[in-house]
Amino acid sequence: MLTDSADRRPLYAQVEDHLANSIADGRWPVGSRLPSEDELIERFAVSRTTIRTTVQNLARRGLVEIRRGKGTYVTEAKLTQPLTELSGFVEDMQAAGRHASARVVSHEIVHASTEIARQLALPAGTEVVRIKRIRLADGIPLSLDDTFLPRALGAQILANDLATEPIFALLEQKYATPLIEAEYRLDAIVADVELAAALEVSAGSAIFRIERTSYTTGHRPVDYEQLHYRGDRIRFATRLLRNPPDRPRAR
Amino acid sequence: MLTDSADRRPLYAQVEDHLANSIADGRWPVGSRLPSEDELIERFAVSRTTIRTTVQNLARRGLVEIRRGKGTYVTEAKLTQPLTELSGFVEDMQAAGRHASARVVSHEIVHASTEIARQLALPAGTEVVRIKRIRLADGIPLSLDDTFLPRALGAQILANDLATEPIFALLEQKYATPLIEAEYRLDAIVADVELAAALEVSAGSAIFRIERTSYTTGHRPVDYEQLHYRGDRIRFATRLLRNPPDRPRAR
Repeated sequence: MLTDSADRRPLYAQVEDHLANSIADGRWPVGSRLPSEDELIERFAVSRTTIRTTVQNLARRGLVEIRRGKGTYVTEAKLTQPLTELSGFVEDMQAAGRHASARVVSHEIVHASTEIARQLALPAGTEVVRIKRIRLADGIPLSLDDTFLPRALGAQILANDLATEPIFALLEQKYATPLIEAEYRLDAIVADVELAAALEVSAGSAIFRIERTSYTTGHRPVDYEQLHYRGDRIRFATRLLRNPPDRPRAR
Repeated sequence: MLTDSADRRPLYAQVEDHLANSIADGRWPVGSRLPSEDELIERFAVSRTTIRTTVQNLARRGLVEIRRGKGTYVTEAKLTQPLTELSGFVEDMQAAGRHASARVVSHEIVHASTEIARQLALPAGTEVVRIKRIRLADGIPLSLDDTFLPRALGAQILANDLATEPIFALLEQKYATPLIEAEYRLDAIVADVELAAALEVSAGSAIFRIERTSYTTGHRPVDYEQLHYRGDRIRFATRLLRNPPDRPRAR
């Protein structure tokens, strides 16, 4: 019995804290299997319901992953990525102390759909360059990026080795296309079979889908991306100010 | 055969555009069932693979929902919520022209876990007030909010009717606790059974989980929330500026 009778929190909260601490201090390292439900019941002298609530809460916090029929495993701590300025994947990984790499899945010239044309301020059906890349951090797939560029600019970009050269750096440093700002739209979705295979997760896993339209000078859109980040590996963080109620609200 | 032989995009892209336009212009209203795969194959004179790619792309864009064994249905357009300043649910819904309401699921005094105590800058185990609410927009559950407040402040808040009074408004207007800023942490998760039931979605649905710690004057944390938004109903939008590469990066 490891719970503390002087601690007046519900048992599941005490057990949850205990298990979370065992993970935080490395006693249960990443990838290790949690003791079975029966072992946890015996160790903490609590009910099966209590243990289940505990483990579900840990899973919701992203500390463990319940693999159906296989047990519960300690997951890699998520990478917290600031959502405070326009930055590219390689810059983000460098800031986080991770090694970034990329696999180019495909590149092609396509006719822009109504939506993609609108994002790039082109007539629908205009030819654009589409580049699909898997972005990795320390060798682990983190994001599937689907990038659409105006045709002429895209053709220039494609002359480079995109497994090593980030598109943002090429735009800014090689093709005189400074990035000024971007619009971000964030969705939470679940991975379909194709996305799951690319990111090496199970179908049905949580995914952050980010649509990002980046603008150069003169508010000219030059890069429209659909980014698909693994929800089990990344969280975004920002800090927002309150607009005092007596002032008009910002747009 | 509704596809255009002068249009050189792949067939699936043409069909996708066509279907997306039928949804956008209201010919296929929200809640209506898309024609069956067989009907679409006949109508567009394309292969089953093409139709499946098309429908999967529409689902990924959030325009339709594939209900296994039941067909494909047009979904409600998502509500786009700015992620640009600290604002509460009722304010967000008012800005979006929706009617906000709330159901109080539970309120209780609990002993803060290590994590919750840290967020509120209290010693672990300190008593805090915990309030669970389902937040609705036009009568549809949009978010499950789990709110933690320091005990004294929380007891004051609980004296009000939280089905109608927003906590942010109470803090600022009734209890002299101006909100200055907040830290946001965003995760993409999938709904477990409990969360799914509260939000009236299927278990395994995509959820935006937002942890928000709001601060009053003197950088004193006064409100720690775990918000769980339905991924099928909401997207967040922001605009970020590029920090020029020759200047030091912002934190």
